[in-house]
Amino acid sequence: MNPTTLPAEFRDLLDAQVAILATMGADGYPQVSALWFLADDDGTFKLSLNSARQKTKNLERDPEVTLFILDLANPRRYLEVRADAHVARDDDYRFADRIRAKYGVDLRKVDGPGEHRLVVTLHPVKVNAVNVGG
Amino acid sequence: MNPTTLPAEFRDLLDAQVAILATMGADGYPQVSALWFLADDDGTFKLSLNSARQKTKNLERDPEVTLFILDLANPRRYLEVRADAHVARDDDYRFADRIRAKYGVDLRKVDGPGEHRLVVTLHPVKVNAVNVGG
Repeated sequence: MNPTTLPAEFRDLLDAQVAILATMGADGYPQVSALWFLADDDGTFKLSLNSARQKTKNLERDPEVTLFILDLANPRRYLEVRADAHVARDDDYRFADRIRAKYGVDLRKVDGPGEHRLVVTLHPVKVNAVNVGG
Repeated sequence: MNPTTLPAEFRDLLDAQVAILATMGADGYPQVSALWFLADDDGTFKLSLNSARQKTKNLERDPEVTLFILDLANPRRYLEVRADAHVARDDDYRFADRIRAKYGVDLRKVDGPGEHRLVVTLHPVKVNAVNVGG
């Protein structure tokens, strides 16, 4: 089986409201935070990040990251997606507007002077679908 | 303020049923999983792990890890605890029995031949208490 194949019985987690991203911090500790995301039809995951954020700097320095999606109703069930992060400018907020459609938040209002909006595409290299109770 | 001080309004998360642990994998990607934990009165966090698990090997190789506790009822609220992991044997299941008291699971039944039970103590070096909506 392709190591990035997502089992059908876990596909509901692609619609989760929040994902958890682990990047490698410059201090040597993983940096972990919860954030908005979209699962795209091509199997990638996309994030909308501000250029000034620490997690953005981390994944630009070390693009090997892990996205974790927990079933909030049954936290023994989760997806762990190890992925390579590719960063691109989203100056026209084209992707940010897809986040707006899902979450109802306008990211134009978040970015300050000298900052810019990025779209981060996570290309899975390994997917672990876990159900401890299953 | 001490960087490991936990704000009072986040102390409820110490009683959460699940925590998320990020370790550094040998493949260069963070390894992330959900697991049982106890928050101890001395400010440390403790985990009960089997010696054969990948996360155990990761934190023995690189003890700089991050524990993440998400408010499942409000996932914009969470604790990120960067910590140094110290591993000790728990051959008499003394700590495992504290996990049993919290979760009702007997970890003696989990460990196979040639494996042993460990208690991992996480000593926080930095605590980030986040409430995105707060």
